[in-house]
Amino acid sequence: MVRIGIMGYGNLGRGIECAIKQNADMKLVAVFTRRNPETVKILTEGVSVYSVDDVQKLKDEIDVLILCGGSATDLPKQTMEYAKYFNVVDSFDTHAKIPEHFANVDEAAAAAGNVAIISCGWDPGMFSLNRLYSGAILPMGKDYTFWGKGVSQGHSDAIRRVEGVLDGKQYTIPVDAALEAVRSCSNPDLTTREKHIRECFVVAEEGADLARIEAEIKNMPNYFADYDTTVHFISKEELDRDHSGIPHGGFVIRTGKTGWNEEHNHVVEYSLKLDSNPEFTASVIVAYARAAFRMSKEGMKGCKTVFDVAPAYLSTLSGEELRKQLL
Amino acid sequence: MVRIGIMGYGNLGRGIECAIKQNADMKLVAVFTRRNPETVKILTEGVSVYSVDDVQKLKDEIDVLILCGGSATDLPKQTMEYAKYFNVVDSFDTHAKIPEHFANVDEAAAAAGNVAIISCGWDPGMFSLNRLYSGAILPMGKDYTFWGKGVSQGHSDAIRRVEGVLDGKQYTIPVDAALEAVRSCSNPDLTTREKHIRECFVVAEEGADLARIEAEIKNMPNYFADYDTTVHFISKEELDRDHSGIPHGGFVIRTGKTGWNEEHNHVVEYSLKLDSNPEFTASVIVAYARAAFRMSKEGMKGCKTVFDVAPAYLSTLSGEELRKQLL
Repeated sequence: MVRIGIMGYGNLGRGIECAIKQNADMKLVAVFTRRNPETVKILTEGVSVYSVDDVQKLKDEIDVLILCGGSATDLPKQTMEYAKYFNVVDSFDTHAKIPEHFANVDEAAAAAGNVAIISCGWDPGMFSLNRLYSGAILPMGKDYTFWGKGVSQGHSDAIRRVEGVLDGKQYTIPVDAALEAVRSCSNPDLTTREKHIRECFVVAEEGADLARIEAEIKNMPNYFADYDTTVHFISKEELDRDHSGIPHGGFVIRTGKTGWNEEHNHVVEYSLKLDSNPEFTASVIVAYARAAFRMSKEGMKGCKTVFDVAPAYLSTLSGEELRKQLL
Repeated sequence: MVRIGIMGYGNLGRGIECAIKQNADMKLVAVFTRRNPETVKILTEGVSVYSVDDVQKLKDEIDVLILCGGSATDLPKQTMEYAKYFNVVDSFDTHAKIPEHFANVDEAAAAAGNVAIISCGWDPGMFSLNRLYSGAILPMGKDYTFWGKGVSQGHSDAIRRVEGVLDGKQYTIPVDAALEAVRSCSNPDLTTREKHIRECFVVAEEGADLARIEAEIKNMPNYFADYDTTVHFISKEELDRDHSGIPHGGFVIRTGKTGWNEEHNHVVEYSLKLDSNPEFTASVIVAYARAAFRMSKEGMKGCKTVFDVAPAYLSTLSGEELRKQLL
């Protein structure tokens, strides 16, 4: 049994808890929170919620500590801190800061003799893996990543900051014509606007100037100005009824050429269609927690990413079973 | 530089040669053949063709020997034999015999201190990897593999054995309705007939009984009887003009559920659309030859499959570059 601790109990932490339930070789032993533990109700019977301050007391009960904080401020501190005491897995997803995060975590984990796997999930994560595999196989080619259809938390937050907006949800949607152009092996150079559209569902205050709100959203730099954006004003009831889920997904497509004169085209496509972004991310993380546990048992240490983990470590099946059933 | 030898110069061997040309860190040093070497003309200038009997003489010139023989009779002998002297990669694809092949090759490679990677390509190979990854992430789910649209060599050969047939080509085609049923997360149980159709293009002898040929093909046990099969009679010119390529591809789809009450559905889909089956297979093999070379340098030995190879070994990029550019 791999004994798991969950640090942080939001959407992702709850997803981890659900994923552990689906994996017979895994056991949840503790949830840690910055809130008052008595106010945090979890789903698993017989498992306690502890204050984050008590995490070291459970050092010997936990094989892998899964860090469910945010990438902006939590994980840059937490992962390197807890890698001193535990094997850890995180889903750090600020792409530009991954090299720095890796270096910090590697130093802590290597010194302590622990395994830390960072940036697990689907992007970074499964999408990264597919970029690597298809790029290694088809060096003369080009890859494209599309996101959606799915809810972008950052863009939804940006909408909610507009004056007169009570609530809102934003969907990122890949443009079908762009997907088809890529699949045709024409190697298109696509602008930001050509790749994705943004669709917003907005609940406005009564009497608010809707035209002003719509213009303010559509012209917002970084978030919306570079995209074709549509804004729908709906009631709070409609938003809660039709847009309360957290779906996401996307596509990684690489096209490339082979042959002595590069006369043959190939398309490698990986896609995800997810009802729940945090639950799928959590499912990836839990598989990598299994890997962290096994790699640590074999004496490995330091910071790893999905690129460094041999696939067999993720599966409950033995090498023999894998070769017989899946190869 | 990784110095490569190619054992066997058919479609796959030529594909390996083309793939090496695309990889700046790889160098072809020798091609070995069972034919008279003087009759074998290769594409790469300055590289010699040798008799298979001379392979051991080039032991010190070759880092990885790529075995391009067939799975029926060549590879069961060759891989275990050459693993005594070289790091080797093969594309052994008789799924049912992989465990036995693995055991034989592992013994030889481990004793000699070499790395042998078997069953590289796309199925077994990339499709197997996708079955493993998606299965580890979504344990409560089901996976489906579809092949095509593509040419099946075995079925084309079967057509050609029918009396009165001069030549023929068979395409395996996934049934769209089956793909859609799988993607809908309805977890359908699909029969052989529901998953794929078979389309045959046949050149008949002049005056042959076409109805008899068509019936004989459609009722052929194992090959066609369990499928909806269509037979088109065409001229030799049409066959050569329209059906001389070796395209293939397919889909690996896993659907699964997450959530405390399994209330959320997810679809993970990997697909390939290949103009040239042997050239794409060769491109996968060459990436794994790079991995075999590096793993051997690190002191690893014995038989491996795609499941045992950490993805980073496949790429020419360093760990730092991978994290910065692809993660």
